[in-house]
Amino acid sequence: AGDAEAGKAKSAVCAACHGAEGISAMDIYPNLAGQKEAYLVAQLKHFRDGERQNPIMAPMAKPLSDQDIEDLAAYYSGL
Amino acid sequence: AGDAEAGKAKSAVCAACHGAEGISAMDIYPNLAGQKEAYLVAQLKHFRDGERQNPIMAPMAKPLSDQDIEDLAAYYSGL
Repeated sequence: AGDAEAGKAKSAVCAACHGAEGISAMDIYPNLAGQKEAYLVAQLKHFRDGERQNPIMAPMAKPLSDQDIEDLAAYYSGL
Repeated sequence: AGDAEAGKAKSAVCAACHGAEGISAMDIYPNLAGQKEAYLVAQLKHFRDGERQNPIMAPMAKPLSDQDIEDLAAYYSGL
């Protein structure tokens, strides 16, 4: 299971586009705050594994472990 | 530009998974309420055009016109 505190610590790079509190500053980037945890896990894995292709998210997700992904999802779903 | 009232009228089929008010009842389906309008437009077009592949969303998005997509995005981003 994800650890929201650990996720927060890993979220600095995410904040550049998705906002410090998970509300994006740009209309083309999705808000993450309060998004469904299982959806966030699935999408991060899809970006990492290439099932969902996006030139910005692919290199972001590439180095993430399953635990990293669960932690990030726990953090953002709880905002 | 999208018409939120028209989008609401077109959103009945979306509500089955994404909730009557854009808050999904299932953890694997994303909330749409308050999501960024341009992001919603982009993703619906990607589902329609096959750039983002998903077996549930592909047939949902297939028949949508650009105007339909803009209307739906206006509706959900405003919830």
